[in-house]
Amino acid sequence: MSSRTESYLVGLVGDGVTPSLTPPMHEREGDVQGLRYLYRPIDLLELGLPGEAVGELLQSARTLGFNGLNITHPCKQLVLQHLDEISPDARRLGAVNTVVIRDGRFIGHNTDFSGFAAALASGLPGARLDRVVQLGAGGAGSAVAYALLTAGVRTLDLVDMDPARAAERAAELAGFFPHATVTARTTAELPQLMPLADGLVHCTPVGMAAHPGVPLDLDLLEARHWVADIVYRPIDTELVRGARAKGCDVLDGGRMAVGQAADAFRIFTGLDADPDRMRSHFLELVAAEEVAA
Amino acid sequence: MSSRTESYLVGLVGDGVTPSLTPPMHEREGDVQGLRYLYRPIDLLELGLPGEAVGELLQSARTLGFNGLNITHPCKQLVLQHLDEISPDARRLGAVNTVVIRDGRFIGHNTDFSGFAAALASGLPGARLDRVVQLGAGGAGSAVAYALLTAGVRTLDLVDMDPARAAERAAELAGFFPHATVTARTTAELPQLMPLADGLVHCTPVGMAAHPGVPLDLDLLEARHWVADIVYRPIDTELVRGARAKGCDVLDGGRMAVGQAADAFRIFTGLDADPDRMRSHFLELVAAEEVAA
Repeated sequence: MSSRTESYLVGLVGDGVTPSLTPPMHEREGDVQGLRYLYRPIDLLELGLPGEAVGELLQSARTLGFNGLNITHPCKQLVLQHLDEISPDARRLGAVNTVVIRDGRFIGHNTDFSGFAAALASGLPGARLDRVVQLGAGGAGSAVAYALLTAGVRTLDLVDMDPARAAERAAELAGFFPHATVTARTTAELPQLMPLADGLVHCTPVGMAAHPGVPLDLDLLEARHWVADIVYRPIDTELVRGARAKGCDVLDGGRMAVGQAADAFRIFTGLDADPDRMRSHFLELVAAEEVAA
Repeated sequence: MSSRTESYLVGLVGDGVTPSLTPPMHEREGDVQGLRYLYRPIDLLELGLPGEAVGELLQSARTLGFNGLNITHPCKQLVLQHLDEISPDARRLGAVNTVVIRDGRFIGHNTDFSGFAAALASGLPGARLDRVVQLGAGGAGSAVAYALLTAGVRTLDLVDMDPARAAERAAELAGFFPHATVTARTTAELPQLMPLADGLVHCTPVGMAAHPGVPLDLDLLEARHWVADIVYRPIDTELVRGARAKGCDVLDGGRMAVGQAADAFRIFTGLDADPDRMRSHFLELVAAEEVAA
């Protein structure tokens, strides 16, 4: 093996990605696997570039020898038109967060979806998945809902602040999963829905450092519910802490972050990442941030 | 120190650079120094790009988080117009082979010149430098002649197949080094010149695998001459072997290659490279190539 074939150059394109933990997670996993792995944030806000620049950035990355790019807000849809090939799941989701560059071709994947699915399987093994309430039907929420339905959820109640968005997503998902029931709901219906649900998944920004609070009345949670949050800054959101206090099984947002990074690592390198190792590194990084903050 | 500040992303722009030994030399030195160092060849021939693309490549490299680029044929002059700052030596030479990207600015250097100077000092310590014959006055030859005059050569006889080019370079160099005598010469004059010279420097492609042979009649060499070749594929050119057989002190072409790489490494990282360590790695790489060939 020459050092050339063992080296991987990857980037993350999006707004405000400079402090993302994805680059150090990939680099550390590459180190452990003995790869030369370098992962650069490409921050559109710092560069003063619009999301539409993603096509040119892809071309530049190919020219300069990148193996792939992760793509985040606001480029997950904008990137689609520039790809040579899109995985079936990413095509259905209408969103790509991982582009691998192979033989000069751009191939898109969605590891938000697959990463949440992996997180759910590893972090809440054996959880009942018959009926789930999901809060938030934006980009991440769509991927998570798709993962839930793929994992076997039969009744999904989809709540969003924007009822039109919830209705649109519910209809789309119902089309892809004809044996499931996907219904747009409102927060006013939560007191009726939670007693019927096995678990709750949270996909809004509430609970992030900049948006403190809880996304629903914690009194609606019972010990028999499992609760999954996708917010991971902080890792122990108010929702996560409240759910734990109630005795719920909990999946914190770090699980999805690690799941999507592990899948992207595999797509870029063809090598399996160790999600437990990545998770412990991720928790180290988050702890270091929380100490510094 | 975060992993972010320790990582260096560098490229080499030029025609046919894919097999260059510069990337693995830098990467290995970075490894030994505990840096995350990744160096990509950006081969214009493979990409189907003209030398004029160097300006766009610089901009792409800045956007995607490169720390710098090495620049080789045919871009060493073409790059000048795209730089924000040029070192005084590179400006006089009219050629840049190293661009560091700092705070978004492009700063050009010439380590062909400084690398040859370092090679001469370390590989032929104490060599007499009063009068030198140099064969070849192209791009690399200009840098070498500049290094020789900087190192104290007082009389430089410059021979080129193209007499106009030799005359032009001699006049330029004489302007920069008014206390030295720089004269354009022809190969026909070598029998008169060599008996007066302390050493011979060879800067044409003759002796490369694709251009076998010797660049002058080896009978003109005496044991008291030192001989420097800048060809390094093979490392023991016919000239190097012939000169050794005559008992001459010899500087092989690897010395300049290592010298320019060590200087570029320092410019990119701010850290000193160890030229002896780089040289032994370089010799390993060349030996591996020669076995494979």
